[in-house]
Amino acid sequence: MTELKNDRFLQALMRKPVDVTPVWMMRQAGRYLPEYRATREKAGSFMNLCQTPELACEVTLQPLDRFALDAAILFSDILTVPDAMGLGLRFTTGEGPTFDKPVRTAADINALGVIDPHAELKYVVDAVRLIRKELNGRVPLIGFSGSPWTLATYMVEGGSSKEFSKVKGMMFDQPELMHKLLDVLAQSVTEYLNAQIKAGAQAVMVFDTWGGALTPRDYREFSLQYMTQIVDGLIKENEARPVPSILFTKGGGAWLEDMTLSKCNALGVDWTIDIGDARKRVGDKVALQGNMDPCILYASPKRIREEVAGVLASFGKGDGHVFNLGHGIHPAINPEHVEVFINSVHELSRQYH
Amino acid sequence: MTELKNDRFLQALMRKPVDVTPVWMMRQAGRYLPEYRATREKAGSFMNLCQTPELACEVTLQPLDRFALDAAILFSDILTVPDAMGLGLRFTTGEGPTFDKPVRTAADINALGVIDPHAELKYVVDAVRLIRKELNGRVPLIGFSGSPWTLATYMVEGGSSKEFSKVKGMMFDQPELMHKLLDVLAQSVTEYLNAQIKAGAQAVMVFDTWGGALTPRDYREFSLQYMTQIVDGLIKENEARPVPSILFTKGGGAWLEDMTLSKCNALGVDWTIDIGDARKRVGDKVALQGNMDPCILYASPKRIREEVAGVLASFGKGDGHVFNLGHGIHPAINPEHVEVFINSVHELSRQYH
Repeated sequence: MTELKNDRFLQALMRKPVDVTPVWMMRQAGRYLPEYRATREKAGSFMNLCQTPELACEVTLQPLDRFALDAAILFSDILTVPDAMGLGLRFTTGEGPTFDKPVRTAADINALGVIDPHAELKYVVDAVRLIRKELNGRVPLIGFSGSPWTLATYMVEGGSSKEFSKVKGMMFDQPELMHKLLDVLAQSVTEYLNAQIKAGAQAVMVFDTWGGALTPRDYREFSLQYMTQIVDGLIKENEARPVPSILFTKGGGAWLEDMTLSKCNALGVDWTIDIGDARKRVGDKVALQGNMDPCILYASPKRIREEVAGVLASFGKGDGHVFNLGHGIHPAINPEHVEVFINSVHELSRQYH
Repeated sequence: MTELKNDRFLQALMRKPVDVTPVWMMRQAGRYLPEYRATREKAGSFMNLCQTPELACEVTLQPLDRFALDAAILFSDILTVPDAMGLGLRFTTGEGPTFDKPVRTAADINALGVIDPHAELKYVVDAVRLIRKELNGRVPLIGFSGSPWTLATYMVEGGSSKEFSKVKGMMFDQPELMHKLLDVLAQSVTEYLNAQIKAGAQAVMVFDTWGGALTPRDYREFSLQYMTQIVDGLIKENEARPVPSILFTKGGGAWLEDMTLSKCNALGVDWTIDIGDARKRVGDKVALQGNMDPCILYASPKRIREEVAGVLASFGKGDGHVFNLGHGIHPAINPEHVEVFINSVHELSRQYH
């Protein structure tokens, strides 16, 4: 095993001392980078980019060559799991992801089985292994998956949704059926993340993009319960190091205390809460990852530095903070602004450690 | 002045005793009703429907003829104010609202003046007067406007937005300019709501649809500050009755305490917070309006009643609750489900008063 040259990210997730606050960005391998767009074109389709380990590896490493990032994240899509279940994922321009075979009935759900990540998702496991090798210990690699509730929204709606009428209709009127779907997803995600860990992922993150569309009670019952089941089933140590887990519910700032009960190591937070308040609320139970508004990167370098300073000051002195945006970086952002952002985090955070 | 036959809604907003919990729905005059769709077709365009007092009156009254609602709300659009400022509002199918002349520069903003509601928005004032006459005291009439921040998002972006890159870019890099825009909007909205009150609106509501896209600090500075300015300038009493004001920031559940400082009478809350928790937090400072997930109306009548019971139980005994959905009713909802919803609120709430 190659020695890890920069372990700030893993240390911070375990709330251990670091020299400066580690930083990475959701969607750091993405359309804002011209080199990403070139590889994406070469791949022909987005799915082909995800499914070709060499290309997925290439785009995963691209942002690390530009910026002093403290972690790499596997390039993939949250919807690989339902695709592996046979739903037929497609990306159409303007429309976003759609499934050829959405899941609408008891028969549809009963036909779903727990995926074998080494069969249907071998391309992901291979990509993780290859990225880990190519990283050569520069920074740790993050594996990830969508949360069961978030995957279910796409599977039942058949694609993106603003109102969630079908998936909520099922949740309200056929809760047992919804629980069956969420359970098969939770089992699949657990297998999937453990396969990523065994292949070399050094931390894992669960993206709950749509948990924030639920009431507090429905969130606990239909989203958090299944993320907790996943955390419970994860491999906790590999290569003689802890493998930290991060849960991120977009718009879930009100539920941080509940989320700590999952026993995950860290919580992602978006910019609609003050990270200092979040820290007071979660205490020493978890680390926090976040939480700058991604729109700040449209602003001037001076303003970006001010905002970084504000987030760092709000978190305050001490350990357990991984700097990140509160959501994925937008495609129209100027990469020079990203450089200012990343360097500011390192420069301005030294005083807090 | 005709006597008000049902004043539950106004009483509840002032936290006075009522026999049962009053209820109305955001977008209660809307596409889920076949009679609305017929009038909308007759009007030719959505803007013509808004701008013809007789037609606006007709659709405002339609839901009252079907359901035992405790309030009527003026049929209009939140974007009438920027349209009156000369931005050229248009509704295009699929695209939503767009402005011919978005506001992007200091020159654009310096050219904006405070609107005169009796000139550019005479059609709204006339509609309020006509609706009030036709209501003949059945229930109170609610006037409304978009919040300055929400109007600014549409004005700067030129229409709907998911990322708010332009308006946040202006906010971050040219805060003084953004404040100038928000101030002229706050003055205009104050004039507009006061004209609605003088024409017969018995309560007013400010819709802050996009305040929830801000950080807590930016929310206070760029949205709440201007809603507070509006509340401060509102006519507080008319026809020998208080005229209560309601502020509603979608996704603003975390900021209820801050919002009470505006001295408004009531806060709208969406379904992502528990209304019982919200009540504990605001104490006796304001009434609360909300907060059922609009998606519940896709569920069975039995499930709808259960959810109504749950919200009522969460709020608990006592005054100061106006039942509502946490957001507008969806166009695909079956009107029979709405009837179950409205009647359930009245039937099941008696025990709490």
